[in-house]
Amino acid sequence: MDAKSVPAVPVLLTDLYQLTMVTAYHELEMVQEAVFEFFVRKMPPRRGFMLAAGLQQVLDYLQALQFSADELRWLASTGRFKPDAIERLAGLRFTGDVHAMPEGSVFFANEPVLRVTAPLPEAQLVESRIINLLNFQGTIATKAARCRIAAGKCSLVDFGMRRSHGAEAALLAARACYVAGFDATATVEAGRQFGMPITGTMAHSFIQAHDDEAGAFRDFARVHPRGLTLLIDTYDTVRAARAVVRLARQGLQIDAVRLDSGDLGALAREVRAVLDAGGCAQTRIVASGNLDEHEIEALLTSGAPIDSFGVGTRLDVSADAPYLDCVYKLQEYAGRPRRKRSSGKVTWPGRKQVFRVTDKRGRIVADTIALEHESLPGRPLIEPVMRGGRPLAQPTLDEIRARARAELESLPDCCRRIDDPDALTATISDGLRALADQVDREFP
Amino acid sequence: MDAKSVPAVPVLLTDLYQLTMVTAYHELEMVQEAVFEFFVRKMPPRRGFMLAAGLQQVLDYLQALQFSADELRWLASTGRFKPDAIERLAGLRFTGDVHAMPEGSVFFANEPVLRVTAPLPEAQLVESRIINLLNFQGTIATKAARCRIAAGKCSLVDFGMRRSHGAEAALLAARACYVAGFDATATVEAGRQFGMPITGTMAHSFIQAHDDEAGAFRDFARVHPRGLTLLIDTYDTVRAARAVVRLARQGLQIDAVRLDSGDLGALAREVRAVLDAGGCAQTRIVASGNLDEHEIEALLTSGAPIDSFGVGTRLDVSADAPYLDCVYKLQEYAGRPRRKRSSGKVTWPGRKQVFRVTDKRGRIVADTIALEHESLPGRPLIEPVMRGGRPLAQPTLDEIRARARAELESLPDCCRRIDDPDALTATISDGLRALADQVDREFP
Repeated sequence: MDAKSVPAVPVLLTDLYQLTMVTAYHELEMVQEAVFEFFVRKMPPRRGFMLAAGLQQVLDYLQALQFSADELRWLASTGRFKPDAIERLAGLRFTGDVHAMPEGSVFFANEPVLRVTAPLPEAQLVESRIINLLNFQGTIATKAARCRIAAGKCSLVDFGMRRSHGAEAALLAARACYVAGFDATATVEAGRQFGMPITGTMAHSFIQAHDDEAGAFRDFARVHPRGLTLLIDTYDTVRAARAVVRLARQGLQIDAVRLDSGDLGALAREVRAVLDAGGCAQTRIVASGNLDEHEIEALLTSGAPIDSFGVGTRLDVSADAPYLDCVYKLQEYAGRPRRKRSSGKVTWPGRKQVFRVTDKRGRIVADTIALEHESLPGRPLIEPVMRGGRPLAQPTLDEIRARARAELESLPDCCRRIDDPDALTATISDGLRALADQVDREFP
Repeated sequence: MDAKSVPAVPVLLTDLYQLTMVTAYHELEMVQEAVFEFFVRKMPPRRGFMLAAGLQQVLDYLQALQFSADELRWLASTGRFKPDAIERLAGLRFTGDVHAMPEGSVFFANEPVLRVTAPLPEAQLVESRIINLLNFQGTIATKAARCRIAAGKCSLVDFGMRRSHGAEAALLAARACYVAGFDATATVEAGRQFGMPITGTMAHSFIQAHDDEAGAFRDFARVHPRGLTLLIDTYDTVRAARAVVRLARQGLQIDAVRLDSGDLGALAREVRAVLDAGGCAQTRIVASGNLDEHEIEALLTSGAPIDSFGVGTRLDVSADAPYLDCVYKLQEYAGRPRRKRSSGKVTWPGRKQVFRVTDKRGRIVADTIALEHESLPGRPLIEPVMRGGRPLAQPTLDEIRARARAELESLPDCCRRIDDPDALTATISDGLRALADQVDREFP
């Protein structure tokens, strides 16, 4: 399975200040090497960990970065930029290096997830879209991973396209869910773009458009007999389950029934009893409707006989934490470490690495944020992923998914807890503290 | 200013069940006229009204609807559809009618916002993307309208691209904010696509890449002297304000300073005093950083001398209510009204209209949801916007914005309140209740 990307977006999908700064850097000849790092300042509420996702799209974006003739013409037409500034934008490509945690890594607040090293104008220009990509997929992968933990061995399907924030969000949410361990998505285009499994059968409208429910089931089965999932809550769920049993006795092969409303736990038990008594022990129960990790955990803890969950809205917008408090900050320019000291937003300067110590069972014990050249105990998490504007070999989507699975298993129980989890706090190395003090002395 | 749309997305950006249902409808010859309506079941939390946005993108989508050869080949390759099913998909276009509330209308729970009347397969196929477009822009326009109400006469700029959920979300959020009364966006591509005003000057990295802050200000002004806004919170805000005064005395024309951290109210007062004492009374103060309608209201109520707000993350993901509980439901098929009776998700059948009664000052008094052919007091809100697959003349983006402004002024104070607002509850007409009873008798 290939980890293909979504269609390219215009370079003008950026904040105007990136263009004013880049053209200023060009004119001022401030084109020396800059180092920016992407990290999350604070853990989102109700999260014990974060799951990295979206690096593939960042690398695709950087590799393709080039203003089109149309974009340049439009920029010139705004009257904001001089002709030679436009000309320099025309020649701009991304020629830098990128280091990052691989997709599917778990991480915590303040840990650099991605580092860009490039001439200042290039490294600056890409800020807005890099944050846009990593914030969103990281947000959704984290939420989806919590659903995965809550669902245990049950199957999970992404149903959220309709309530995603636009087209790209729907596609990238499907991808992020798959990275985090979902089994499939209902979003067809995600199947085409990413080679992910897709699934789906019928909505209430199919039942409603028929004059009777059993007739609708029969009609649907006639056209799509394989992998048949019947939606049974349009009028009366238990009555519909009895109709399913009758249809099965008439020879219909019914893989699953779906419940989408009401008390899902109680209905699942009633429906399971009807199906089992009617000889449909093989027919699985799919539940959907306003689900998230809390609902899934509550249903399974109560013993509801549900085999598969369709999770939509609250997952695809990560309703209880719809963004990461993430930034992309200048840490070094022209060989000198830099630091922002704005109130409440102080950053750690320099090029950094994260060292992770695990116990004998592979569980995470501690992370330390250090300078790149420091040598500390533990596994370094940041690795090179692009050199001179060319991406290094990247894992497939299924390899990323396998990594995420192992990483989620490496989390301490306090991080994996669904209700009120505790995140780890990364330690700051002595070397990094010393550098920060030094920068404060140099830029008083 | 033209209300142009975003680039077309593949028809495969839909849920798989739409394709299984559409191919079933084709094979079963269920191609009679269907009526679907889009509405919001419950008001989002912390909202006293909703603002409609996204209709233009829906009409563009419907008009362009056509599977590409690549999409059809891929669909065939999945083995899920018979060759003649693929052939019928190849010929599928949207040939129906659409009625809707104009963009920029305020609306409440259960009120139909858009109605599609078309042969069943066409009306069904478009469900997922219609919800995807109307949910998102409606969510953001509503949040932005609350910011607009809170900000009074202050200027408002959308800063949220980086934390939007992907590329399309960033563009459509900028559009929705403009509809709701924002003055500009930082997102360049939104300026190109929609002809909206764009704005932006510098980030902290520009300051940090220089060895001293005043030097950074001077350098920037040399390249971009027009509309100069200096970011003054990188190290020490009040000290930077004094540097701004010195630069002004040296002849620099400084339009504004921006505060992005700390106690914005206290800092704005201190900076205002420094600027006024230094002869910079014309220099405006822009505030940004973790703002939303509550923060804006609190700052202005406390008398903070802020002229303009840059609002980002919490606006562009509508952090406290990131989705509408919205649906697109079959209300009639083949001349018979239809109704879903799933627990907690009962719908009102038939083709509907909303009648709005206002008082002498133009304030909304009551909305009534009725059948289309009923004649009730008040102004009907639903109007034809597409006939036979061809859009009727649509307003420009500035006309939509003007409508939204008037509509927001027509809201009762309880709906406009920022803290704990109350929404109106639409009345259900006697005719609609009678029809629902009749449908329940026909589909027992």
